[in-house]
Amino acid sequence: MPTGIAAKDSKVDVLVIGAGPAGLMSAFALARAGVNVRVVDKRPKKVAAGQADGIQPRTTESYGLSDRLLKEGTQLHVAAFYNPSRNGGIELTDRIPDVNATDTNFPFEVTLHQGAIEAIFLDDMRDMGVEVSRPVVPASIEVTETLVDDFDAYPVRVALERKHFESENEEYTEIVHAKYVLGADGAHSWVRKSMGIAMEGEQTDYVWGVVDLVPDTDLPDVRNKCAIHSNNGSCMIIPREDDKIRLYIQLEGKDVVDASGRVDKSKAGPEMILNVARKTLYPFTIKTPESYDWWTIYIIGQRVAERYTVHNRIFIAGDACHTHSPKAGQGMNASMQDSYNLAWKLVHVLKGTAHRSLLQTASKLNFHLGELYEFERRQYAQDLIDFDKKFAKLFSGKPYSELNLDGVSHAEFLKAFQTFGGFTSGLGVQYADSIIINSKHQHLAQHIRIGRRLPPRPLLRAADCRPIDLHDLLVSDTRFKLLVFTGDTHDPSQMGRVQRFAQELRAPGSFFAKFSSLEAMHTVFDIISISSEKKETIMYNALPRNLWSHWSKVLVDDIDMRGITGSGKVYSSLGIDSAGAVIVLRPDGYVAAIAPLDDVPHLSSYFATFLRAC
Amino acid sequence: MPTGIAAKDSKVDVLVIGAGPAGLMSAFALARAGVNVRVVDKRPKKVAAGQADGIQPRTTESYGLSDRLLKEGTQLHVAAFYNPSRNGGIELTDRIPDVNATDTNFPFEVTLHQGAIEAIFLDDMRDMGVEVSRPVVPASIEVTETLVDDFDAYPVRVALERKHFESENEEYTEIVHAKYVLGADGAHSWVRKSMGIAMEGEQTDYVWGVVDLVPDTDLPDVRNKCAIHSNNGSCMIIPREDDKIRLYIQLEGKDVVDASGRVDKSKAGPEMILNVARKTLYPFTIKTPESYDWWTIYIIGQRVAERYTVHNRIFIAGDACHTHSPKAGQGMNASMQDSYNLAWKLVHVLKGTAHRSLLQTASKLNFHLGELYEFERRQYAQDLIDFDKKFAKLFSGKPYSELNLDGVSHAEFLKAFQTFGGFTSGLGVQYADSIIINSKHQHLAQHIRIGRRLPPRPLLRAADCRPIDLHDLLVSDTRFKLLVFTGDTHDPSQMGRVQRFAQELRAPGSFFAKFSSLEAMHTVFDIISISSEKKETIMYNALPRNLWSHWSKVLVDDIDMRGITGSGKVYSSLGIDSAGAVIVLRPDGYVAAIAPLDDVPHLSSYFATFLRAC
Repeated sequence: MPTGIAAKDSKVDVLVIGAGPAGLMSAFALARAGVNVRVVDKRPKKVAAGQADGIQPRTTESYGLSDRLLKEGTQLHVAAFYNPSRNGGIELTDRIPDVNATDTNFPFEVTLHQGAIEAIFLDDMRDMGVEVSRPVVPASIEVTETLVDDFDAYPVRVALERKHFESENEEYTEIVHAKYVLGADGAHSWVRKSMGIAMEGEQTDYVWGVVDLVPDTDLPDVRNKCAIHSNNGSCMIIPREDDKIRLYIQLEGKDVVDASGRVDKSKAGPEMILNVARKTLYPFTIKTPESYDWWTIYIIGQRVAERYTVHNRIFIAGDACHTHSPKAGQGMNASMQDSYNLAWKLVHVLKGTAHRSLLQTASKLNFHLGELYEFERRQYAQDLIDFDKKFAKLFSGKPYSELNLDGVSHAEFLKAFQTFGGFTSGLGVQYADSIIINSKHQHLAQHIRIGRRLPPRPLLRAADCRPIDLHDLLVSDTRFKLLVFTGDTHDPSQMGRVQRFAQELRAPGSFFAKFSSLEAMHTVFDIISISSEKKETIMYNALPRNLWSHWSKVLVDDIDMRGITGSGKVYSSLGIDSAGAVIVLRPDGYVAAIAPLDDVPHLSSYFATFLRAC
Repeated sequence: MPTGIAAKDSKVDVLVIGAGPAGLMSAFALARAGVNVRVVDKRPKKVAAGQADGIQPRTTESYGLSDRLLKEGTQLHVAAFYNPSRNGGIELTDRIPDVNATDTNFPFEVTLHQGAIEAIFLDDMRDMGVEVSRPVVPASIEVTETLVDDFDAYPVRVALERKHFESENEEYTEIVHAKYVLGADGAHSWVRKSMGIAMEGEQTDYVWGVVDLVPDTDLPDVRNKCAIHSNNGSCMIIPREDDKIRLYIQLEGKDVVDASGRVDKSKAGPEMILNVARKTLYPFTIKTPESYDWWTIYIIGQRVAERYTVHNRIFIAGDACHTHSPKAGQGMNASMQDSYNLAWKLVHVLKGTAHRSLLQTASKLNFHLGELYEFERRQYAQDLIDFDKKFAKLFSGKPYSELNLDGVSHAEFLKAFQTFGGFTSGLGVQYADSIIINSKHQHLAQHIRIGRRLPPRPLLRAADCRPIDLHDLLVSDTRFKLLVFTGDTHDPSQMGRVQRFAQELRAPGSFFAKFSSLEAMHTVFDIISISSEKKETIMYNALPRNLWSHWSKVLVDDIDMRGITGSGKVYSSLGIDSAGAVIVLRPDGYVAAIAPLDDVPHLSSYFATFLRAC
């Protein structure tokens, strides 16, 4: 520390370093759960334009983001493919759905510049009194190893240097003692480097230019995602908010890379990128705009961090863990999913609702919650990069023609585009078995998969027949959701089973009595009942009171009063029969466990492996 | 004016007296159109609870209110009917759709207390720099008759007394010179009385108590609208936001009316009303709440003002024009529709886009725009009261039983409830022919009705295949909407017809060239093209440029990329054939005129009757 500058000391439960999408998502989730969290960022101001912009269906359906994303963002419904025509230049070959997934309420990509997405979190955090401190640069980080297993300790010490807003001169140094630190500080992560975590993988030869602008063009698909393969290079168009588009253009490495193999931005600019695009787009034209919204040039790297955590006290998330090409629109999504995957686990450990004895072990079926984060999200990042390698190669390849028989044909590209759909939509992510994913009783709900997110389903609220989607009740609030599929409660014998289930839940030995109570339910569980009785006869208040947390949480599987929404087919589409079942969802919406109504012990032993009575 | 208080003078285009739903709707619409408007209200604060609460489908689908209404309000999907049971007390007889209309995207009633609805307008007005002055009381109003036909004059002089916020002492008097004044000052309207406008109709014998509370009850339909007929009286339950409900209970006049026939509030209170309800609800129970949100008692009056305007310079709207029973949830809706009906006409007259010569005549087919307001909305109010008389009688009647053969049977009540559906939903309103409703060429769109609101229809945007409802483009922005149904533009001969139509629009004699231009379009017209070409082949920019105001205003009648939304049946469901048609919508969404693509002269003569070249 320089002489003459006093250091102040402070304590915080979680220090988040980096206020991009990964950092803000975790800070938001932690703050909303009532955790004492602080966020610092080295940039003097938040991102105003450019950067990441693609939001996948799984992200749109999570975290309560959809209202603002749909209001502010652009929806991509079509992927248009342009290929060489016989007349020289390009022509439209195909228009297909941009997202190859139907079992979602948002079967399309949303685009919106990163700063607008960050603003969603920043606005909500401001309402909770949490602001980002900036510009603040971390100077050192240390962990006291002897304290890492002490529940009450603050074992991580971080020195932060507060910079002057404009000059970036150091104003003062602050020592922060944190229980946990999250490094969400990007591809060049200072936290990752400080912890000596290596990136595994390689740099590629692909060099891409990116430019955001409002186009004046005669290309008829300028408002669709366009994958353009010409004999003069490849180009991708991504429509964006406010009539803008983003152009991704493959560049010749020699034109923009210096002797050391790094991009030399002085060698290029948005005009240069647009001029390369013009050759690809011919015979269509695009005028030079009055100004460019944003631009960049980069070489694609495809790498994953060897570890995601140190002592389960320091974590990294987002670009700090994985870098890959941006063209499949995965980066920001993976980052937010990383940090929400971690956030709910941190909340339960910090609040003491997760069992302390778990924190010492690391076998595959008995994880530290922090290790579970690495286990689940590092596997995902590896899959992402495998996908990215295949996709980038196809996208950057020369098009097939009579002169280039080794080229990439449209059929080949199309097949890859569609095959990877489950992956790029984020809907196909499957977490492997662990203490928090238990695949017993899978047969009770045959059409869903334990370890995957539960798909949306149209239902009615029993009390008022209001059509509602099951997803609307699955709020990202760090609570486990118990979905009690009661079967037909109009049948007295089935109602008897439901009443016995409710009674077993009330018994002192059950997980529900041990880890929660109606009063404390807001910290660990929410409980929702879904009956297959008909809307005309159901009396919502005839169901046992401990099977619904509020009158709005009793649902019926029926079609609505006018036969427009709802379906009456939710039980059958999930593969649940008339005997019912209980589905346990993790706080991030993944199916964690399933039980029949008469197997409360299974649920109790599932939760006992990681929850503690409080 | 008292000695010692100085009067200041000011000018305003429109002075709105009264900041309830009618006043705020018009002020909002005028301000958004750029009109110089001022709103005053005698109440020191805005309404915080109670008052009107029912929003009908037509209101929800208009004016851009739906986002906030759906977020903040309660949706009523079910009307539940309870009738006397054999065991004494009441039982559930039926659950039916609350709204008997399907051709709307909001086939349900929304409830939300009046203050929250006013807040929607107040928030948007604040963003435009318009605030309500309060408490301000009008003291006198005069019109200079010699100036009423002078475009530039401010012929209405209103003296306003500004009160002290708390003491309500007079602080100063202000003289406002207005071009127009709108009296939206409620059932006891000072403006109406000052102008000597009489109310026609009568007081009824029906006395009702109303109480808003959060219920603790075992009635299973407490979250549905309930119409309860018991042998101990009638009751209606309206579910509301924040788990509240409203109870309407019929009272014995003798218990609460004083010798002069007026309600004496000192004779009753919410407990008294709730106790009467308890007798009706038996065997179901309702606990006494810790507090009541709001309550009132009233005698139903069924009256319409004999005139709605004086010199077409002073207008009245909302409760100032019509009073009736609140049980069909019409009041607030009728009020907002009154004032929007007037607002768009005022905007065009004030901006000079409506023809001055019109302001002198009053024959049925050649109206002053202000007289058109009265013509359309007074007829509606009379229909409303006719309906209300029938409905209130049925609702207040004793239930049919073996002991009361003259009573109202459930079947009889149900039939009335369903028959009146088109009316209560607001979707069945039909304006008669006038200079702004021209029923020529009705046969070109056989399944809609000239004079009624255009129903919603699912379409795709041609440029990006985004599913969009036609209603989403029909913004209440005081512009006429030209919907150009182009037919199949993939067919060269049909495209030729479309191009000729576009060319005729550009010709100097056409209404479009005379009253508008691409640049000035934002004041008078918006133009939207709807093709029956398929999404795979359409090139949105192949349609003539003057037939769409923005790339997002070229639509296709097709099903979306995944076959989920859209329909491909909009042409057939509207009754428009492959030759296409042009539908002119008024700024309030009512179908005003229809023409074939080759009859631009019909459109030109339609608009020439009331628009002026500018």
